[in-house]
Amino acid sequence: MKYCSNCGTLVRLGIPPDDNKERYICDACDTIHYQNPNIITGCLPRWENKILMCRRSIVPRMGYWTTPAGFMENGESVEEGALRETMEEANAEVEIVRLFSVSSIPHINQVYMIYLANLKNLNFFPGPESAEVQLCSEEEIDWDNIAFSAIDYALRNFFKYPDDNQIHCNSISSKRR
Amino acid sequence: MKYCSNCGTLVRLGIPPDDNKERYICDACDTIHYQNPNIITGCLPRWENKILMCRRSIVPRMGYWTTPAGFMENGESVEEGALRETMEEANAEVEIVRLFSVSSIPHINQVYMIYLANLKNLNFFPGPESAEVQLCSEEEIDWDNIAFSAIDYALRNFFKYPDDNQIHCNSISSKRR
Repeated sequence: MKYCSNCGTLVRLGIPPDDNKERYICDACDTIHYQNPNIITGCLPRWENKILMCRRSIVPRMGYWTTPAGFMENGESVEEGALRETMEEANAEVEIVRLFSVSSIPHINQVYMIYLANLKNLNFFPGPESAEVQLCSEEEIDWDNIAFSAIDYALRNFFKYPDDNQIHCNSISSKRR
Repeated sequence: MKYCSNCGTLVRLGIPPDDNKERYICDACDTIHYQNPNIITGCLPRWENKILMCRRSIVPRMGYWTTPAGFMENGESVEEGALRETMEEANAEVEIVRLFSVSSIPHINQVYMIYLANLKNLNFFPGPESAEVQLCSEEEIDWDNIAFSAIDYALRNFFKYPDDNQIHCNSISSKRR
């Protein structure tokens, strides 16, 4: 951030009164611009013992595999965002079972919230951001080419604890790829 | 948003190529400015069958009761944010037990993530944003004056299902106050 989004004046970095962190401050219109983490919301779409995987056709991580997930949008719930992403990326209709994993990634200011969901049918097909979509058992997943650490974490917990009813939480501190 | 935070030019609202939602677009430097929900992270600090409540000394909802919670900051995990808020608002040392509730509030673009946590000791005292802090049993909570719907939801589930090991999720759609 270089300019105030409210008045167009150059901002400065400084610690506001009653705060202890540096923020972008506009001295012209007295606006403090806070910057906060984003939520990535998505699903593990399940059919029997398989998960619907998407091979990405866009950057970042083009060509790598993920499950349907993306930035939560204003005006929706986390669950609605997960359903939307699953439709956008794989044209897949699912019913959410439960929140399955929460992964914080502090160094990129992201929080992944991944839901276990049951596929309602097998009429899925690739959306514009996917090169292919495919149901994969544990053995069929291309583990060496998972796009995102938080998705790898969710998938590994799904296959490791198939009858688990726990939520899996972690914090990913380095760029493990 | 009126001006581009990257170059200071006036932005316009429009739907970018390959998108389906209106964004603020800068035609001068080709930046698309996405706006996404914020996470409110906090704790239900528990001591036996009581929860540590804080009476707010700041707006919004000054004078109303809440548990320690606030905006998640860049560079921290959700859990770290919950611990930080609990220290800032109540000077309370806690150990997180588990993620207890997730509440989406689409009309204000917020997601509350509230952790059940055990107080390590009783040395808590009000931080600058709290007028008083107090351990309250279910009967002692001032239910008519809870500051935020998502905190009310977490508290009610805590007292209703004391031995529950489930995560409680909801979406709060109207301004119930």
